[in-house]
Amino acid sequence: MSYNLLKGKRGIIFGALNEQSIAWKIAERAVEEGAQILLTNTPVALRLGAINKLAEQCDAIVVPSDATSVEDLRNLVDKALEYFGGKIDFVLHAVGMSPNVRKNIPYEAIDYNNFFKTMDISALSFHKLMQTLYENDAMAEYGSVVALSYLAAQRTVEGYSDMAEAKAMLESIARSFGAIYARKCKVRVNTVSQSPTLTTAGQGIAGMGDMYDYTDALSPLGNASADECADYVITLFSDLTRKVTMQNLYHDGGFSSMGVAASVIEAFKRGKE
Amino acid sequence: MSYNLLKGKRGIIFGALNEQSIAWKIAERAVEEGAQILLTNTPVALRLGAINKLAEQCDAIVVPSDATSVEDLRNLVDKALEYFGGKIDFVLHAVGMSPNVRKNIPYEAIDYNNFFKTMDISALSFHKLMQTLYENDAMAEYGSVVALSYLAAQRTVEGYSDMAEAKAMLESIARSFGAIYARKCKVRVNTVSQSPTLTTAGQGIAGMGDMYDYTDALSPLGNASADECADYVITLFSDLTRKVTMQNLYHDGGFSSMGVAASVIEAFKRGKE
Amino acid sequence: MSYNLLKGKRGIIFGALNEQSIAWKIAERAVEEGAQILLTNTPVALRLGAINKLAEQCDAIVVPSDATSVEDLRNLVDKALEYFGGKIDFVLHAVGMSPNVRKNIPYEAIDYNNFFKTMDISALSFHKLMQTLYENDAMAEYGSVVALSYLAAQRTVEGYSDMAEAKAMLESIARSFGAIYARKCKVRVNTVSQSPTLTTAGQGIAGMGDMYDYTDALSPLGNASADECADYVITLFSDLTRKVTMQNLYHDGGFSSMGVAASVIEAFKRGKE
Amino acid sequence: MSYNLLKGKRGIIFGALNEQSIAWKIAERAVEEGAQILLTNTPVALRLGAINKLAEQCDAIVVPSDATSVEDLRNLVDKALEYFGGKIDFVLHAVGMSPNVRKNIPYEAIDYNNFFKTMDISALSFHKLMQTLYENDAMAEYGSVVALSYLAAQRTVEGYSDMAEAKAMLESIARSFGAIYARKCKVRVNTVSQSPTLTTAGQGIAGMGDMYDYTDALSPLGNASADECADYVITLFSDLTRKVTMQNLYHDGGFSSMGVAASVIEAFKRGKE
Repeated sequence: MSYNLLKGKRGIIFGALNEQSIAWKIAERAVEEGAQILLTNTPVALRLGAINKLAEQCDAIVVPSDATSVEDLRNLVDKALEYFGGKIDFVLHAVGMSPNVRKNIPYEAIDYNNFFKTMDISALSFHKLMQTLYENDAMAEYGSVVALSYLAAQRTVEGYSDMAEAKAMLESIARSFGAIYARKCKVRVNTVSQSPTLTTAGQGIAGMGDMYDYTDALSPLGNASADECADYVITLFSDLTRKVTMQNLYHDGGFSSMGVAASVIEAFKRGKE
Repeated sequence: MSYNLLKGKRGIIFGALNEQSIAWKIAERAVEEGAQILLTNTPVALRLGAINKLAEQCDAIVVPSDATSVEDLRNLVDKALEYFGGKIDFVLHAVGMSPNVRKNIPYEAIDYNNFFKTMDISALSFHKLMQTLYENDAMAEYGSVVALSYLAAQRTVEGYSDMAEAKAMLESIARSFGAIYARKCKVRVNTVSQSPTLTTAGQGIAGMGDMYDYTDALSPLGNASADECADYVITLFSDLTRKVTMQNLYHDGGFSSMGVAASVIEAFKRGKE
Repeated sequence: MSYNLLKGKRGIIFGALNEQSIAWKIAERAVEEGAQILLTNTPVALRLGAINKLAEQCDAIVVPSDATSVEDLRNLVDKALEYFGGKIDFVLHAVGMSPNVRKNIPYEAIDYNNFFKTMDISALSFHKLMQTLYENDAMAEYGSVVALSYLAAQRTVEGYSDMAEAKAMLESIARSFGAIYARKCKVRVNTVSQSPTLTTAGQGIAGMGDMYDYTDALSPLGNASADECADYVITLFSDLTRKVTMQNLYHDGGFSSMGVAASVIEAFKRGKE
Repeated sequence: MSYNLLKGKRGIIFGALNEQSIAWKIAERAVEEGAQILLTNTPVALRLGAINKLAEQCDAIVVPSDATSVEDLRNLVDKALEYFGGKIDFVLHAVGMSPNVRKNIPYEAIDYNNFFKTMDISALSFHKLMQTLYENDAMAEYGSVVALSYLAAQRTVEGYSDMAEAKAMLESIARSFGAIYARKCKVRVNTVSQSPTLTTAGQGIAGMGDMYDYTDALSPLGNASADECADYVITLFSDLTRKVTMQNLYHDGGFSSMGVAASVIEAFKRGKE
């Protein structure tokens, strides 16, 4: 179903790896809603994933870029401006990876070179992206920039390790750059704090399946899916949300506002016996 | 411009007094987006306002109701179910009034009968409304209930008096009832925390004009208008935000995420000399 | 052990029912720390409880007062000023009761007369108390007012019913009155958001025991006890926290900052099988 | 005045540069309250500052360490355990510096090498410190670790630049490591979010004086001073706050809970004319 919410709009989508990716769903929905898009991901992800299939389906071009490389980002923005023949209306940042998590290094023993990589990939890349867009005056007025975040930025999720700091930094960058981008160019910047999602990235986290079940039980509406996240992000790219900025928006079936749920206590009680 | 975001949906709009009202704008936009609506307000407001003009324009019926009267609300819900010939998809609660504020009674000397009136009108009415809808199983699955709130629920706004407590209670009711409504009927409940707005209600607050200018300067995107609020609320009524619930969503040009703005300090510095 | 933290200070303690009460522990600790105190509670609570034992132990007087009665509060403040021979340095508000919870009325079917009683007893009483103190210029400079709150003010705790709204209102009153009291008299006002505690009041809530175990497991330091709460509140009454005001301070072993704990998921997983 | 709140306790104090430093005041107060302390700072700061005077006054030893160097931190912890002849009861982290701020590089054009230095010095150093303490089992049960933070972690303060991200990361580390340290060793970890303070570091920020005046006017109790901060931190090191952990505690005269103040609007209004 299409509402033509993004008719005539042009955007860059980071982070679509395969059909499970939230970014993949967002790309599809953006195009359904009338947008023209450009896809980007790291060269490695482009090889591993199925992005060409998506590009074909979305009638999009693919420009490789490593979001930690300012040079790559400059090239990307140049290519986008050229391809679109005009300014960019929306950008999705769905980029995150922690070598410490991948290698199952406990948080109390993390490797600090890994830590900086986690920050560079998962958070600072968001600043680099916006700085590049800003320097090139590449965003249209009331353009919308969205990054995907997670509740661990506010509350400790055991096992999420240094990705908690990455998401806290990501959300801070959204506020800090958002204030500047709003004043100078009327561009808005927000993060969407999404339920645990069974993407390839999500499934790479140890114990993800059990956590998924737990948060699904605690959330009054259940976990939000990747498809539902795509729908939500579309509203943030649209002209209907022009005064929403510098916000972290929970898309999580109510999890973030739950303290204690009766059914969870019930299962907990049985389980500890 | 219309996207048909609410095509086939049916909703109740509280609180449209005149063309400046946020609820008025929401009613107009809902109809533009394809919804069928029912308007309601207190008998006094119906007399004072211009709601019949809106009703005509929106091809809507008007059912008087005092949102503090459970009897009136029952009648309203009955009428709505009958008029729509089916369940309700969305409801807007834009109701608030403080006799203490109206009478310029300082917060440190408030009258407690007035206080209970403030709570009843501005907050408990939201519970009564949802309880009535719930008892009548009147909301459609993934229906959306939205109430208008304000930052004073979290941070002290001098002069806002006991409306701060009313908004804090309103947002708490959204979470508490939201948890139940989600589990039982998949209905979502949220509040939108809107910038100071120059409505008839807003203008009734002493010093509102100056406060408006101040928050406008501090907000990186400026204050959000009633029209922009209507656009935003439409997204929350739509099917694109089905997993957003129990949230308080700031629609304020970034004000809520601002600490200190250089231009405001500059003016403050000059002004205190 | 005593540090003489409250040497020479004089305070009013509301809500000490019996030895399990947090207020009881605070009274004991305040006196240990050198304070002179006055105890108060409703006539019914005075009859049911063991307050005379506490009064004897603390060398304190007992003045009956219903915290919802402005008349009683005026009498209380008069008596306190007379008894102390000077202004009041600290006040504890530990007052809360919901007829809806007591009668096990579900939140989606609450009785609104009960609701107003819940608000009056558990939240508005805090305003009435401060308004009475304020009118009588009864608080010493840098005096400290503390009320006991609970996480349900921010996040839904199933079964806590309309006490969620009462606590949200209580915390709002702390901010609203705190702003005024600070500017006019340099008095600070805060709430302490305490872990579930096995007091007589706590045990009256259905399923409290299981909830206690759950939050104890989720909190990295375990639930905070009534004794520990007393220690914490003493610091807020002392001169060491003079610039802390309008805050809600979690005293909960870290619960409020936890998202997901591995051990809880483990038990949940076993329990739902 | 002394309460002997820290009698028999032993702690490490980072970041005392000169008499204006918050850390300097905390060191003095800790010793007044009966603690034995060890002072540390970078070799450069030791040369520039007056720490030997403080050491003499506090009967403390000074151990140079760069908080970004794990090697230095290991040496520091070894020296501390040896000097104290036992475990450590409290640690203050008051470390922060941004080369981007120092060089007046605008946030929208920051240098990323500088950014990593800001993070390393101001935030990651806190993890390195705790990781070193943890590996050496150096903290006593119910030991207390405190880091100094600032509101810019939650709300944008124009001009604070990448220190916003550093403080957001710092507070996230407090939660993440706090959860682990609590479960394994009953150690608590908190941050204190202090008012703008006219220390040497504070004064290095452009426009600090004007910001100080603005926040002083907006805060109902006025800005909190370095001396008052020292008093507050002492309570967090004491045994009276054993169940407070993973919290960010505002010590700011109420600023964080203020939205709009009448006097500030008044000055703003005059100033913009």
